[in-house]
Amino acid sequence: MLNSRQMRNSWDPTQLLARRARDLLANAGPSYAPPREQVLRLAAGVPDPTVFPVEELVQTFERMLRSRGELALQYGGNQGNAELRHALAERVNRQEGLALTADNFMLTGGAAQALENVCFSLVDPGDVVICENPTFGLSIRTIRAHEGELIGIPLDDDGPLPDAFERALSQAEASGRRAKFLYVTPNFQNPTAITFSLERRLRLLDLASRHGCLIVEDDAYGDLRFEGEAVPSFYALADGRGVIRMGSYSKTIGPGLRLGWTQAQPELLQALVAMRLDMGTAPLVTYLVAEFVASGAFNGHLERVLLFYKDKRDRFLAALGEHFDGLARWRAPEGGFFVWIELPEGVSGEKIAEEAMQERIMIAPGSRFYCQDACANYMRLAFSFIAAEEIETAVSRLAKILRRNIAAQSVRR
Amino acid sequence: MLNSRQMRNSWDPTQLLARRARDLLANAGPSYAPPREQVLRLAAGVPDPTVFPVEELVQTFERMLRSRGELALQYGGNQGNAELRHALAERVNRQEGLALTADNFMLTGGAAQALENVCFSLVDPGDVVICENPTFGLSIRTIRAHEGELIGIPLDDDGPLPDAFERALSQAEASGRRAKFLYVTPNFQNPTAITFSLERRLRLLDLASRHGCLIVEDDAYGDLRFEGEAVPSFYALADGRGVIRMGSYSKTIGPGLRLGWTQAQPELLQALVAMRLDMGTAPLVTYLVAEFVASGAFNGHLERVLLFYKDKRDRFLAALGEHFDGLARWRAPEGGFFVWIELPEGVSGEKIAEEAMQERIMIAPGSRFYCQDACANYMRLAFSFIAAEEIETAVSRLAKILRRNIAAQSVRR
Repeated sequence: MLNSRQMRNSWDPTQLLARRARDLLANAGPSYAPPREQVLRLAAGVPDPTVFPVEELVQTFERMLRSRGELALQYGGNQGNAELRHALAERVNRQEGLALTADNFMLTGGAAQALENVCFSLVDPGDVVICENPTFGLSIRTIRAHEGELIGIPLDDDGPLPDAFERALSQAEASGRRAKFLYVTPNFQNPTAITFSLERRLRLLDLASRHGCLIVEDDAYGDLRFEGEAVPSFYALADGRGVIRMGSYSKTIGPGLRLGWTQAQPELLQALVAMRLDMGTAPLVTYLVAEFVASGAFNGHLERVLLFYKDKRDRFLAALGEHFDGLARWRAPEGGFFVWIELPEGVSGEKIAEEAMQERIMIAPGSRFYCQDACANYMRLAFSFIAAEEIETAVSRLAKILRRNIAAQSVRR
Repeated sequence: MLNSRQMRNSWDPTQLLARRARDLLANAGPSYAPPREQVLRLAAGVPDPTVFPVEELVQTFERMLRSRGELALQYGGNQGNAELRHALAERVNRQEGLALTADNFMLTGGAAQALENVCFSLVDPGDVVICENPTFGLSIRTIRAHEGELIGIPLDDDGPLPDAFERALSQAEASGRRAKFLYVTPNFQNPTAITFSLERRLRLLDLASRHGCLIVEDDAYGDLRFEGEAVPSFYALADGRGVIRMGSYSKTIGPGLRLGWTQAQPELLQALVAMRLDMGTAPLVTYLVAEFVASGAFNGHLERVLLFYKDKRDRFLAALGEHFDGLARWRAPEGGFFVWIELPEGVSGEKIAEEAMQERIMIAPGSRFYCQDACANYMRLAFSFIAAEEIETAVSRLAKILRRNIAAQSVRR
């Protein structure tokens, strides 16, 4: 053993961290809180385990591993299982009338790793990335970890404001930098739960293409539409040109798979594939899901999942209607896991979140989702994880906290 | 749909690639070749599927998912399944007499993703990274992808040369840069199959600590020792100080799991954990392996795996002894998947590889493993994947090619 006196005692290995790490660590990261039974969780976009297809996956795994074990336990390449990529292409082609092939897809460790790979492949330090403001917090973190400079653009009911997008593009160009991409979550937007209109998508695409800026379309919740008609993706509207789309099995099967995908035109996709340094996404998982899809089990499961979460959403909206009426405003989401609550001016989402935590309810204050100019008077409520029979309790308890805060606010005024 | 004339036809999205991507794409990447039945594969460190524990994994999966499905299909955090991290700590403690806990481990998508995470966390563009020369090709690629500048140091039978390491450290300091870490594969080194001696490890550690340079110890093959006594890890020798160690289940269970780990002191490890942007390694896989380990199945499997590959190595060495005697030189490896063959001066490993490919044998020319000053007269042969009954054919055919090249070489002289 080395005598410890031989080592420089003053030497701190964390001094060796890269600039991106020092910057990132200076800001609190997402802390992972394991499930706590006694807490009513409305904070994160976490699926309800009661709808996980455990028995079907057990049977699928047995069949798959006995017949395909040689492939499922072996290296599988950076782009990933061609059978599953083929199935993804067929599904998107049916949904959107496209003619994609397995060559348009790469499998990833969820949509999160898909965005990480896009940033690693595209973003040089100081490059501008434009995003919805508010947007998904981890995506803000991922873009900043790659030293991209974020410009956030506000949303209305139809999506990001085109004028603000154009100003952001010009602002980047005026400073001699390039806006690499616009990051959006166009269906059941995270956190506002709006879905971008067709007209707005076309307008944003037109601006992006005029300025040579990619659109990165994170559609992690896209398969969870309970009602209404799907709007064509940016990818379909542009016939793939200048658009990278990403999706996930996290919300439909389970996040524990860590399985998602990137969809792009082959030339750009191959560049993203070449930037994978992890030897690809686990074949054990991709062959399991390929068999789950091929057997038809996925489609049947997805139907159950949609009914399950639609029911939760309906109960949640009913509870909001009963307890929040007159206290706050919200829109009924057509899909996804969230309701975005606008609180009265001057009422703080962070304060509500703190007080709710004391009463064992976890919610996400809206301020968490902004890359700049955070609005204080919002909160995001996820109806996905909480047990159906606890919705009423949680919402009524929240309403009491909210009422107290509104009263305190009136007094201060 | 957007009228395609509205899009700038001249616009090429791949022009938006980051500098690191343009640099990396300019060099040929590792192309993934799916298994071809008719080819005898001696090129890559790929396990033999006949030893994959298919039946045991089927039974383990069923038991695990029925009892732990709520966790295995859910988000699991950046650091990963604490049960498996605890099991890893216990194993290392038994092997090396340490007192590690689950807090010293993070689960990763194989040792490959562990190195990717280390580079992302530590390497700023232009930082110096020192490595064995030759070393594992994907690791060279990963370090370069993060714009680290590699200095390679030669090896003798005991490991990397301390004088060369010291010169590299001084060279970095003289140019005002920092050598962030020394990357090594100390057991059954990839590609030379040597194991670093205890004395050499101590000397390298001493130099590293004097210069404030980390040691990154990639021990992906460490569990595959067929004979002889294990040498303490750099991590154990330094009691963790200034060392990051990584391991993998790829060679013992199967690469299709994409499961490995990083071992470090908690403070440094937490920085690496915070730099994960992919929401961690698939819980479905980590709970499966945790159960496989906890049930004792892993230990029994590992014993079979060691006997299986020891037998292959013995057959391979016997075939080399018979056919390569007098044509080339090699050492008998005590573990791992490789034999490193020194060819006569002037005989090219690349030419042998080309000619072998024409006769349907895949080998890895030694030149592929150098980050600088590539030696032409080496080749790496993997005995792991090829069927035992084909070893004789492959080695005798290679010997014929080699003999032809030596003869041609003598004529040229």
